[in-house]
Amino acid sequence: MFENIFSTPDVSSIWSDRTRITNYLRFEGCLARVQGDLDIIPRDAAVEIDAFCADVDNIDFEELKRDTEKIGYPVLGLVRQIVRQVNIKHPGLGEWAHFGATTQDVTDTATVLQLASTLEIVDASLRDVIESLGALARRHATTRMAARSNLQQAVPMTLGFKLARLLATFQRHQRRLEQLEPRVLVLEFGGAAALAECLGLSVPEIAWHTERDSFAEVGGFFALLAGTCAKFATDVKLLMQTEVAELSEPFHDQRGSSSTMPQKRNPVSCAYIAAMAASVRSHCGAMYEAMVADHERSTGPWEIEWIALPEISKLTCATLKHTAELVAGLEVHRGAMERNLSLTRGGIVSEAVMMALANKMGRQVAHDLVYNLCRRSANEDVPLLELLCADDKVTSVGVGRDELQRLCEPGNYLGLSVEMVERVVTCDGEGDP
Amino acid sequence: MFENIFSTPDVSSIWSDRTRITNYLRFEGCLARVQGDLDIIPRDAAVEIDAFCADVDNIDFEELKRDTEKIGYPVLGLVRQIVRQVNIKHPGLGEWAHFGATTQDVTDTATVLQLASTLEIVDASLRDVIESLGALARRHATTRMAARSNLQQAVPMTLGFKLARLLATFQRHQRRLEQLEPRVLVLEFGGAAALAECLGLSVPEIAWHTERDSFAEVGGFFALLAGTCAKFATDVKLLMQTEVAELSEPFHDQRGSSSTMPQKRNPVSCAYIAAMAASVRSHCGAMYEAMVADHERSTGPWEIEWIALPEISKLTCATLKHTAELVAGLEVHRGAMERNLSLTRGGIVSEAVMMALANKMGRQVAHDLVYNLCRRSANEDVPLLELLCADDKVTSVGVGRDELQRLCEPGNYLGLSVEMVERVVTCDGEGDP
Amino acid sequence: MFENIFSTPDVSSIWSDRTRITNYLRFEGCLARVQGDLDIIPRDAAVEIDAFCADVDNIDFEELKRDTEKIGYPVLGLVRQIVRQVNIKHPGLGEWAHFGATTQDVTDTATVLQLASTLEIVDASLRDVIESLGALARRHATTRMAARSNLQQAVPMTLGFKLARLLATFQRHQRRLEQLEPRVLVLEFGGAAALAECLGLSVPEIAWHTERDSFAEVGGFFALLAGTCAKFATDVKLLMQTEVAELSEPFHDQRGSSSTMPQKRNPVSCAYIAAMAASVRSHCGAMYEAMVADHERSTGPWEIEWIALPEISKLTCATLKHTAELVAGLEVHRGAMERNLSLTRGGIVSEAVMMALANKMGRQVAHDLVYNLCRRSANEDVPLLELLCADDKVTSVGVGRDELQRLCEPGNYLGLSVEMVERVVTCDGEGDP
Amino acid sequence: MFENIFSTPDVSSIWSDRTRITNYLRFEGCLARVQGDLDIIPRDAAVEIDAFCADVDNIDFEELKRDTEKIGYPVLGLVRQIVRQVNIKHPGLGEWAHFGATTQDVTDTATVLQLASTLEIVDASLRDVIESLGALARRHATTRMAARSNLQQAVPMTLGFKLARLLATFQRHQRRLEQLEPRVLVLEFGGAAALAECLGLSVPEIAWHTERDSFAEVGGFFALLAGTCAKFATDVKLLMQTEVAELSEPFHDQRGSSSTMPQKRNPVSCAYIAAMAASVRSHCGAMYEAMVADHERSTGPWEIEWIALPEISKLTCATLKHTAELVAGLEVHRGAMERNLSLTRGGIVSEAVMMALANKMGRQVAHDLVYNLCRRSANEDVPLLELLCADDKVTSVGVGRDELQRLCEPGNYLGLSVEMVERVVTCDGEGDP
Repeated sequence: MFENIFSTPDVSSIWSDRTRITNYLRFEGCLARVQGDLDIIPRDAAVEIDAFCADVDNIDFEELKRDTEKIGYPVLGLVRQIVRQVNIKHPGLGEWAHFGATTQDVTDTATVLQLASTLEIVDASLRDVIESLGALARRHATTRMAARSNLQQAVPMTLGFKLARLLATFQRHQRRLEQLEPRVLVLEFGGAAALAECLGLSVPEIAWHTERDSFAEVGGFFALLAGTCAKFATDVKLLMQTEVAELSEPFHDQRGSSSTMPQKRNPVSCAYIAAMAASVRSHCGAMYEAMVADHERSTGPWEIEWIALPEISKLTCATLKHTAELVAGLEVHRGAMERNLSLTRGGIVSEAVMMALANKMGRQVAHDLVYNLCRRSANEDVPLLELLCADDKVTSVGVGRDELQRLCEPGNYLGLSVEMVERVVTCDGEGDP
Repeated sequence: MFENIFSTPDVSSIWSDRTRITNYLRFEGCLARVQGDLDIIPRDAAVEIDAFCADVDNIDFEELKRDTEKIGYPVLGLVRQIVRQVNIKHPGLGEWAHFGATTQDVTDTATVLQLASTLEIVDASLRDVIESLGALARRHATTRMAARSNLQQAVPMTLGFKLARLLATFQRHQRRLEQLEPRVLVLEFGGAAALAECLGLSVPEIAWHTERDSFAEVGGFFALLAGTCAKFATDVKLLMQTEVAELSEPFHDQRGSSSTMPQKRNPVSCAYIAAMAASVRSHCGAMYEAMVADHERSTGPWEIEWIALPEISKLTCATLKHTAELVAGLEVHRGAMERNLSLTRGGIVSEAVMMALANKMGRQVAHDLVYNLCRRSANEDVPLLELLCADDKVTSVGVGRDELQRLCEPGNYLGLSVEMVERVVTCDGEGDP
Repeated sequence: MFENIFSTPDVSSIWSDRTRITNYLRFEGCLARVQGDLDIIPRDAAVEIDAFCADVDNIDFEELKRDTEKIGYPVLGLVRQIVRQVNIKHPGLGEWAHFGATTQDVTDTATVLQLASTLEIVDASLRDVIESLGALARRHATTRMAARSNLQQAVPMTLGFKLARLLATFQRHQRRLEQLEPRVLVLEFGGAAALAECLGLSVPEIAWHTERDSFAEVGGFFALLAGTCAKFATDVKLLMQTEVAELSEPFHDQRGSSSTMPQKRNPVSCAYIAAMAASVRSHCGAMYEAMVADHERSTGPWEIEWIALPEISKLTCATLKHTAELVAGLEVHRGAMERNLSLTRGGIVSEAVMMALANKMGRQVAHDLVYNLCRRSANEDVPLLELLCADDKVTSVGVGRDELQRLCEPGNYLGLSVEMVERVVTCDGEGDP
Repeated sequence: MFENIFSTPDVSSIWSDRTRITNYLRFEGCLARVQGDLDIIPRDAAVEIDAFCADVDNIDFEELKRDTEKIGYPVLGLVRQIVRQVNIKHPGLGEWAHFGATTQDVTDTATVLQLASTLEIVDASLRDVIESLGALARRHATTRMAARSNLQQAVPMTLGFKLARLLATFQRHQRRLEQLEPRVLVLEFGGAAALAECLGLSVPEIAWHTERDSFAEVGGFFALLAGTCAKFATDVKLLMQTEVAELSEPFHDQRGSSSTMPQKRNPVSCAYIAAMAASVRSHCGAMYEAMVADHERSTGPWEIEWIALPEISKLTCATLKHTAELVAGLEVHRGAMERNLSLTRGGIVSEAVMMALANKMGRQVAHDLVYNLCRRSANEDVPLLELLCADDKVTSVGVGRDELQRLCEPGNYLGLSVEMVERVVTCDGEGDP
């Protein structure tokens, strides 16, 4: 029911039994081919095993499932099927399958292949999000809105500036992905360059059966990605509140409808992103725990990955997909942004006013003065501008109504927003740490 | 700097080195006394050891710290000080200290005593919160405000009803505390009823050196408590938003001031509660991991508790204290609540309108009708009431303006709020599961 | 491939789409029936809706899945199917479905029903484990083995004693289950006693849409259960080590075989139990985070449960099942236990020797003496007994070879093992906290 | 009592109140200096403020603590002290302190400075560990021992090979540290290159007040480091078991002594490393949660870092220090390694035997044959060699006793250990991903 919500069809396919077994077979096929070339096993055996392994439909999945439950893991049962089936047609040749490989070599390498596919999806999603975010940030480089600090309106800023910060974060994620991939996309099989090449992987420095740092690093990277998506979803759902109403999730008919409250349009995607990010964090913790492996092949820690990796991969890809759609179709309500900017009757520009007055009377004095006027403005419901104009200390330092009016206009605080947005959008990620 | 923010003086004291060592001495003193009474050790030795252990100032803390770093844990070094000091005055009698006890017996029992003190603070805080919440809920049993679902205004409710739900949760926490205490407050020392009595603890069924379920259960209970506090803090900080402004944290001069934005009053306590609850959850996870203890005395898992228990105890007590203060001094802005209720131009009562129409035209038809009118109301900025009065389907089933006006009045939806509040407030927790 | 390893058929069925929708229908059916009886909706509508809801095959799952993806959650789409299908046969009557209920009422109550079924499985598994453990503990009440502390042989004990400690823990879990069930098995629908009765649930004090403490408590309980299972699995896998060899997992042909190392028999079930327990802990953390719900219906926190609850339930039940099988078929190798007891050449009885000498020369002096002899025994590979017999300080206090020999015999340290085992096994859990 | 166990003096100092305030002052001093140079504030004010900020002893810590508890965070109170103290001597000049900076600018930048110092310690520790590991791996490049898989003896390997895998992991950690540092060591203050230079930091692309990915990344990196240390500690404590006895923690008088069991020498450091790693993982989860920040300055998530960062930094540095000491002083017991290699009566070489036979009879047939002989060897307590020599299938393919004897000699399986060790030890980390 929820498989296309908490996952996506492509990543579900990557982590299916079928793809896992396909990758096991890729390993066994390449192994045989390479060993045949090197005369480690007979060449005709290599040819037949490789041919058999090329088609996952050669495998009896029901039998394999029974064997897996009996033995405790699937590789041994799979190898037996390869041996038996190849032997039927070519007696004796099947025996040469899986030569010199261990269960964990096959399993780990297959997982690396699944991770490679997953990271491709992540990479593509990152590009999508970055492109949409860049366009949106440019479009709204001068769209004014309130920056919120501690959930209080703080100072004016632009939506473009807000989005550019998010964009810079996703650019950092791209860099992280580039940096971790070479550590992850490596073979598990002692020093076999030809096999690695056949599988499109690199050769690791040394075996890593119980050195799971790179897998855990992927888990951590996913938690970072999901965390950024959840930060964005948090902002969107807060800005969709009835009382704020500055943004909306992309409109689709009936999306986010309530069964009983017809007036509502719920931030459904934001809720899912937030929930999935929490789940990704949880699984990430398990991935770190899986590092505490005993000896040369662990007894439990490894199996944690079997549970966590498929889930964390699906949830992360789904989180990115929901986020990409959210960015791409985000509805921006400029009117509400303007309306909210005027809610505090000038309070939102008080920092700017204070800074201007600080030049005349010192920062701390200006702070305390404006602080008190802001409290009065709120309590007495009088615009800050009026209180400033009527204040002796303000007038005595020669700041008149005209200047105060200019200072109290949120539109005068866009600052370097346009430049900042351009700077981030045009960053190719190379100059960026 | 933050010790009275992320902890409280009383709970900090409980988990100090001084109290820990005091509890070790209580164990050793009671052990000697009981063993003297039973003639397991010489009575004069018992008297002297007990007397020595009665005063923590007899201990040289610097020496003990050095010994702890050398040996790896404090009990052995402490026992040596007891032996040596008692021997100095009464040669040979000191030798009888710690007779038949292990390092873990002393450590675990001392921890139980620290937990007992911590749970007393928790119990008192729960009573505080429950009393304040009860009074506040009654005072606002009929104070109308918008219930929010998915951060959208949903239906009218009362603040009292909202608080009563919170109150019922804290009542459940009281019950949980009663239920877990007998499992936790037990001696760690095989079957010694007299020793347990001396220390004010119960005798466990059997030793529990590596059966840490009850400690982990305390961690989980703390996570539940902190979670409820964080839920409340979430609501308060959301209701303190500039655009909502229905509640404020208790006012204290300068509390929550900004160094640069004089207009702001930040939800400081809510932020701390939220952050501490997240930390409590983290430590709770470590407490569960500490259950995976090896054999009869674990190698690492036990030490997790040494790190986590003091922190989780301090954070939980501080979270409860901030929450108690928050409830006790909460500022309620009825005007803003009323103003926000009218924000949706009738949308907030649409469920009620729909239910009324459902009686005439069926639930699903009414839902779709009201759903469409709500969208029009929002898009065209026309009160729902006007659209209802003008709708043929509505008028055709005989629902006129008077009835519609009544249906569109949020004040008519207090429902059973007053009764519900009373029911929860007067619940002695006994009838409650 | 792994569904019967990381779950069990019965718990998988409980958390399937089919059962979830069946429970939604149970809610809608009971709601209609009860509302018909109370004349809230027409009686004939109640009859037809109830009849339709009695058969989950009336639902078009493909359509429901599409609607769920579009709308964001399944209840609205399901209600539409009920309305439409009932209306087809009985025009107008379908409209009365879902009268006065919200999406969350249906969803939460259905989840409670799923939890009720899950807790039944947990309860049955606990009984199984407790029965097997009791029998095993009795059978081995006098089977001597080394207790290990810090992974070092510490003192002699019996296997029965070790198992009785585990048993006492599972008995505490039974008590916890009894105590939490009344908090969990409650309806989500304001004060409807008749509906609760129809569904076999209790009526809560007040609504709990965003008070998720009881669900989080279940998560914590599952973490406790899994933690105890993992503790046991840790011990078993350690005792299965080649160098220890005191226990084996139940033998099944090929279970735990290696594809390359024919001599091995791996602790497969222990590895799975350990891994699943780690995953349960992770999900439990997410359940606690889900408590931090906003307002009256949360935006993200609730959806965390949708992801975590099915997984944590499956993993916990599977963990219990593996544990039950492990206990039931555990192989005990007494010979290895005896052999290992003699490994330390007497060191394992040094505590006993020290205690005996302490009566003559003081505890601390005895400790230091025996400590040094133990080091010599290990370094020089001489039995402790011989060193004791040759030591002047020992002989000077009148302890001769006969007594020393008796003290050095591990068989003399069974202590109260038999009584302790009986005490725990016969505990009905009532006298137990 | 435990501060030098769960932390180290240098990292405790970095995260002390004193250093935090020193860093706040560094920020304020540099800010004034730079703003004076740029004529943003008066030059004489800059000089005086900078001079005041150069000495942390100018601050009244008691007053600051009181202000912090009142206001909720320390920066505002600190700025007031600067203003007041500078004003006393130079009326009016103090006012120019903190010009244009926010509380979070100061706090975040100070935290970055603390992280910079922490990462220096981490870097130095990594170098220590790597140097010691390299030397140890070389020394034991040919020291034979059993590789364990699933806690069962699997195949022969060398200790050097085992250590080289660990070494390669620490090399990967070095690379990770290099890659993340540029993302972390950046100023929090819009685009102020001169200020960044003054503080020895880089200028970020754009502000990052609520984009906490780089801090969370540090948390994840610490979890990776701690995970690797815990993996090593796991192996050491397992290899220190009474029944295995292949390694010992470095010997220090009384280190790891028991108060009651004189024969024991506990793996104290391993236990601490394991426990601290679990705590680091917990805090890491909180760091990820802190990413879910609201708007432009978060309400709770930020404060999570205040709790977690000091703890995770201390625990990580302490974990590395214990690990460095463990590696530097590790005791290796070759005799026990040899003895254990012969425990399985040949079983440990069965993979090699099988591979050799596979060349004659096919891999699967050889597997099944050797599998059965291994079971017989274990059950009947007969060396595998004898069973092989007596087996018809073996002799019929022309493998005689001489070859079998050679195959059954563990010493013949060092393989490429020496080369692998050299390869990793001499790796400058550059060729390595």
